[in-house]
Amino acid sequence: MACRSRLAPAVRAAMPKLLRPATTASSSASLAVRCISSTPSRRIRNTSVRKVKFTTDSYPELSRDPKFSEITSEHVAYFKELLGKDSAIIDGVNKEVSAEDMEPYNGDWMRKYRGHCKLVLKPGSTEEVSKILKYCNDNMLAVVPQGGNTGLVGGSVPVFDEIVVNTSRMNQIRSFDDVSGVLVVDAGVVLEVADQFLAEKGYIFPLDLGAKGSCHVGGNVATNAGGLRLLRYGSLHGSVLGIEAVLPNGTILNDLSTLRKNNTGYDLKQLFIGGEGSIGMITAVSIHCPQRSKAVNVAFLGVESYDKLLQAFREAKIQLGEILSAFEMMDNGSQALVHKVRDNKRPLDGEYPFYCLIETSGSNSDHDSEKLAQFLEDVMEKETVADGVLAQDETQLKALWSQREGIPECVGHGGGVYKYDVSIPLKDLYRLVDDTRQRIEDAGLKGETDEFPVIDVVGYGHMGDANLHLNVAVRRYDKQVEEALEPFVYEWIAGVDGSISAEHGLGLAKKNYISYSQSATKISLMKQIKNLYDPKGIMNPYKYI
Amino acid sequence: MACRSRLAPAVRAAMPKLLRPATTASSSASLAVRCISSTPSRRIRNTSVRKVKFTTDSYPELSRDPKFSEITSEHVAYFKELLGKDSAIIDGVNKEVSAEDMEPYNGDWMRKYRGHCKLVLKPGSTEEVSKILKYCNDNMLAVVPQGGNTGLVGGSVPVFDEIVVNTSRMNQIRSFDDVSGVLVVDAGVVLEVADQFLAEKGYIFPLDLGAKGSCHVGGNVATNAGGLRLLRYGSLHGSVLGIEAVLPNGTILNDLSTLRKNNTGYDLKQLFIGGEGSIGMITAVSIHCPQRSKAVNVAFLGVESYDKLLQAFREAKIQLGEILSAFEMMDNGSQALVHKVRDNKRPLDGEYPFYCLIETSGSNSDHDSEKLAQFLEDVMEKETVADGVLAQDETQLKALWSQREGIPECVGHGGGVYKYDVSIPLKDLYRLVDDTRQRIEDAGLKGETDEFPVIDVVGYGHMGDANLHLNVAVRRYDKQVEEALEPFVYEWIAGVDGSISAEHGLGLAKKNYISYSQSATKISLMKQIKNLYDPKGIMNPYKYI
Repeated sequence: MACRSRLAPAVRAAMPKLLRPATTASSSASLAVRCISSTPSRRIRNTSVRKVKFTTDSYPELSRDPKFSEITSEHVAYFKELLGKDSAIIDGVNKEVSAEDMEPYNGDWMRKYRGHCKLVLKPGSTEEVSKILKYCNDNMLAVVPQGGNTGLVGGSVPVFDEIVVNTSRMNQIRSFDDVSGVLVVDAGVVLEVADQFLAEKGYIFPLDLGAKGSCHVGGNVATNAGGLRLLRYGSLHGSVLGIEAVLPNGTILNDLSTLRKNNTGYDLKQLFIGGEGSIGMITAVSIHCPQRSKAVNVAFLGVESYDKLLQAFREAKIQLGEILSAFEMMDNGSQALVHKVRDNKRPLDGEYPFYCLIETSGSNSDHDSEKLAQFLEDVMEKETVADGVLAQDETQLKALWSQREGIPECVGHGGGVYKYDVSIPLKDLYRLVDDTRQRIEDAGLKGETDEFPVIDVVGYGHMGDANLHLNVAVRRYDKQVEEALEPFVYEWIAGVDGSISAEHGLGLAKKNYISYSQSATKISLMKQIKNLYDPKGIMNPYKYI
Repeated sequence: MACRSRLAPAVRAAMPKLLRPATTASSSASLAVRCISSTPSRRIRNTSVRKVKFTTDSYPELSRDPKFSEITSEHVAYFKELLGKDSAIIDGVNKEVSAEDMEPYNGDWMRKYRGHCKLVLKPGSTEEVSKILKYCNDNMLAVVPQGGNTGLVGGSVPVFDEIVVNTSRMNQIRSFDDVSGVLVVDAGVVLEVADQFLAEKGYIFPLDLGAKGSCHVGGNVATNAGGLRLLRYGSLHGSVLGIEAVLPNGTILNDLSTLRKNNTGYDLKQLFIGGEGSIGMITAVSIHCPQRSKAVNVAFLGVESYDKLLQAFREAKIQLGEILSAFEMMDNGSQALVHKVRDNKRPLDGEYPFYCLIETSGSNSDHDSEKLAQFLEDVMEKETVADGVLAQDETQLKALWSQREGIPECVGHGGGVYKYDVSIPLKDLYRLVDDTRQRIEDAGLKGETDEFPVIDVVGYGHMGDANLHLNVAVRRYDKQVEEALEPFVYEWIAGVDGSISAEHGLGLAKKNYISYSQSATKISLMKQIKNLYDPKGIMNPYKYI
């Protein structure tokens, strides 16, 4: 889940005759747009402040690999000599900084993981990264590449005393071709900075996600981030044209092509896209950026069944075609939780089992409004859709998005939430929610009073990408709930050839569950790749493959 | 270059006031649509029938690797037992068929390559492919995977006596999801068959190329085919969701995911996309297919300079945005050659240094026509474009496309043509044509009479993808011309970080030139991958890396 930057001016859409304007939604002052990302945590997450446990306590089965050297003052001296500036090194080895100063690099923003790192390096160039990795490889020092540290699976923080190599000082936009739309940036450029740069040129970054204000483009590529624009602009495997990366032995792989077509050998960069820093560290990215749309329209619809929701999606693809930019689904349970927390007037008067938010983006506001109005009239006449509202201005547009974007936060308000970010073939997608709810009910774990741990089992997500967020809202952590959920959920997903991690990656959180989504053959081939590029295993150990 | 399937009914576009209808083009009966692919040949290609030389004669430096076994009757007996049907084996070993019967598998359609293959296997299932490759690997028999054999670089035909494993019997459409648009097909499904299947469902295959009537989807993916739709739908690295492939040792890699999002480990399938059968044989493909557009419009414009052509492309992206589906460029030289061969009335009255063909595809014909008309009015008022015509019906639309699609054939009519399919950053793209022409002129090789070998140096291509076809039209083969062209052209491309093979791949033709587009580091890493997957080197030897 992500919040969106809105560049379009207020949208004045033509109203289909059967629809009411979305005044009900925008009349609520509480409908501020909130940016909060969904979490893949399998553990309960309280909103209250708590002391973050060390990952080594949460995962007592992990032990430090004795093949790695302990960091010494001599090692630190080398890095200080190399990087030249004090600002490029945060040294907990020589106690130059306190343990607290290390926390931003040792822990994740979810407060779920916490490492024992004592040394953070902030190289300012690819050459410095190369020298750092070569030294680490020669001296058996474990390394964790780190960008904006906004990941959700513990991939960008150390477990033990791995050295953090952070990209924040590598933050230059290297080049932009105003005709082809090809952007080349350092790995440490913040996604929103890149997107704002592009906005001034009339282009858009083909990726948008909740953490855009702090995540780094290098990290986005290393984790193959999906986000909100995948429906329209496809995955990074298609839009990234080139990368520059440093291999564990210090070799600089310069593959920063700016060409859309180049068929001269294996497309090696693809291994680094989604490789989560396990075979090298991305230092720069070349990416093809589409034209920014001038017009954005949003509709919010109530639907009587999942089958009708599928029909509505099919019709949206047919009738809205090239301007469809989002099709988000929400069940009534998720919307009820938003309503309960915010106490707002819901966008539609009645309640429906399902809702969808449809966004269009195009180059001509009048044309887009007409297409959307025709579509809405058609699906309401056919009774595919039961009711709906259409945003009449930017405020209403934000309010409607907020009904979708507010879910992750609101679901946790009752105490906590078990969250799964999964991908499932569309026809089966919502059945996982029904089956999980049934299982929880059958186990007597769900009810309206405090004696039951589970408040509700809800589902929402990026329908256009077959990406479901299954959320189990609970009053408290409960071993019985966890036992009812796992491995049930993973086995269910494996049974329909789904993915246990749609967009968040493996990291530490899902390392041990990969076999639910990948065959033994594939895992074995993946390990070959890891061993080929990182024979000493210094890159991001304890995670991924 | 490729010819296009037209599904839209006749398009009646609104006419911008400054434009004439394209009656001049359509009034010529000679303007039939011709489908002919451009060729990457560095050698002259005569249109007359000639005896095809063995590749071993054209490339005398190649020698058969003695590590490979000679095929024996015993080997053939094994395959006959395995495949069960006589129809699955074409046996030149036991002289069951004549050398002539082997020709379709031994040679390419360009009549440029010819191997000495004696055994063609046509497995009917993935399991059979697995058993074939395992046996070949165990017995050191070299293998060439072959699809529709429509490649342009000699990648799909043997050089010596490699066994051809042809996918033509694996031709089933396995599944299609009408809501998500995900198609799963056997590798041997013909591209046009897949696209026609999709057309009935309202979808389109996200790839279109000249050989669509005979090329196989598996071959398209193995060569990372680009074609005409890349501008709109991106590369196969983005649209292919999964593959099934057999590794040289017989291991079946089942990665036929139908999910758009799946972040659980290295995306290994990417190595097979564009891997040209060098590390395994693709047996099935899963691909995300977009909605088919209902409306298609085409305009043909004359432009005074390359700078204005760049401006026109930039404006087309801004104003046509999401409906732009092709932006093809042609210089006057290429159009003059088409005119000379066809003796037709050209679409525009005057002559211009450059022409472009703009195609739009969208879901609403009226909207698209309006956008295109507004765009044309704008660029003509600004004098970015000097003159233009807009297709008024399907006949005119085809006639205009024919001005672009007819170039590859017409360029060769004077005797032959040296062809280069390259990718170059847009700003530098046409300069290669100018510089090459200058070089040929400086060498005294170009003129209007028979004493000069070169007729003209022309350029055209997929401007939207920065993909240039540099063509040197000649009267006859001439060593001086070749020496003037090479390595000049490759060095020029390397100097601007271009690609020596935009979409046709390496095969045998460009194997030795890869270093002009890839660094020694990358080539070394590619060889690691080859050795990892195919340690015995049985897959498609003598080619690629």
